[in-house]
Amino acid sequence: MTEVATARRSRITPEREAELYESVLDLLREVGYDALTMDAVAARTRSSKATLYRQWGGKAELVAKAMRHNKPGGSATEVDTGSLKGDLHAIVEHSDDCEMEQNAALMRGLAMAMHGNPDLLQAFREHLIEPEMAEFQSVIQRAVARGEISADNPAFGFVKHMLIGGFMARTLIDEQPPTQEFVLSYIDAVVLPALGVPTA
Amino acid sequence: MTEVATARRSRITPEREAELYESVLDLLREVGYDALTMDAVAARTRSSKATLYRQWGGKAELVAKAMRHNKPGGSATEVDTGSLKGDLHAIVEHSDDCEMEQNAALMRGLAMAMHGNPDLLQAFREHLIEPEMAEFQSVIQRAVARGEISADNPAFGFVKHMLIGGFMARTLIDEQPPTQEFVLSYIDAVVLPALGVPTA
Repeated sequence: MTEVATARRSRITPEREAELYESVLDLLREVGYDALTMDAVAARTRSSKATLYRQWGGKAELVAKAMRHNKPGGSATEVDTGSLKGDLHAIVEHSDDCEMEQNAALMRGLAMAMHGNPDLLQAFREHLIEPEMAEFQSVIQRAVARGEISADNPAFGFVKHMLIGGFMARTLIDEQPPTQEFVLSYIDAVVLPALGVPTA
Repeated sequence: MTEVATARRSRITPEREAELYESVLDLLREVGYDALTMDAVAARTRSSKATLYRQWGGKAELVAKAMRHNKPGGSATEVDTGSLKGDLHAIVEHSDDCEMEQNAALMRGLAMAMHGNPDLLQAFREHLIEPEMAEFQSVIQRAVARGEISADNPAFGFVKHMLIGGFMARTLIDEQPPTQEFVLSYIDAVVLPALGVPTA
């Protein structure tokens, strides 16, 4: 089903949707993914379970969409600074460290929950990682169109591994929040040189 | 305690040690980290539990050292091809895909087990990640000494995030084994350009 078809069938306003996603994330922080029930979401948000299932299909999809809605950082499609470095920095600078830290804590818990919940991994891939990576790819495509970077750079296939991998290594191995400072340094030292942008 | 001090106190031969690590990994594949007991290791390896504890301190350390002993790929200190690209490729090509796939499956399980076992994360950091990264750093230092790359490259601080992050993103998000082909392409497209080595 396309986004448009979903929207047409829905009687939920964007404000109501945002409120609902906030409640889902609150519940997630309180009880964790495994203990989160659709009953609890329905009670907290004063919705019917039928509405929740009709709108989101299930818990995994609802949680993935709530995370996407709440993701720190600006939308990649909203920024256009004229350079790849400027665009990537603008996306990162749009969020604050507190937001990123909260998000990292939630992501850590969810990454662990994916172990026993393959449907959660699938929902994350479909509703969070793929749309986010598509946004980054569009930022990169603009840089190609400007002639800033070459169209056949082999690093294009590894944007996901560079960005998400760096984020994962920072939170899971360093056990440090991926602060703005960390992400900006990582973009300048790793991502831009790999994409062929001189940063000096 | 230093490696030397441990070795002096030990009456375990390197062959016996290798055999013991193999048994630990077999048990790990059979029952997983949480269900693995020192009793089972003692029984399987016909050791006394006292010996196991004296030698390794505990389950987390034993498992981390067994993983390090078994890690696919050559030791970074054994290769010296004369170029950074040659060295990194030699390390990766030393292992085969079957080994890497088995290792990735074990690592996936252990990454999940780290959630409830902070001592496992700590043991991994100390006995697996840090020694491995120190080896990579020595390979990179040789490239600096040869004048192949610049000593003040900001990517030096992110070798861990690039390498382990790429590996994690491949296994956890793509759910694909990090094949030789993947790792070699990733090194050429991401790691070497970030470190300032032209790959064309």
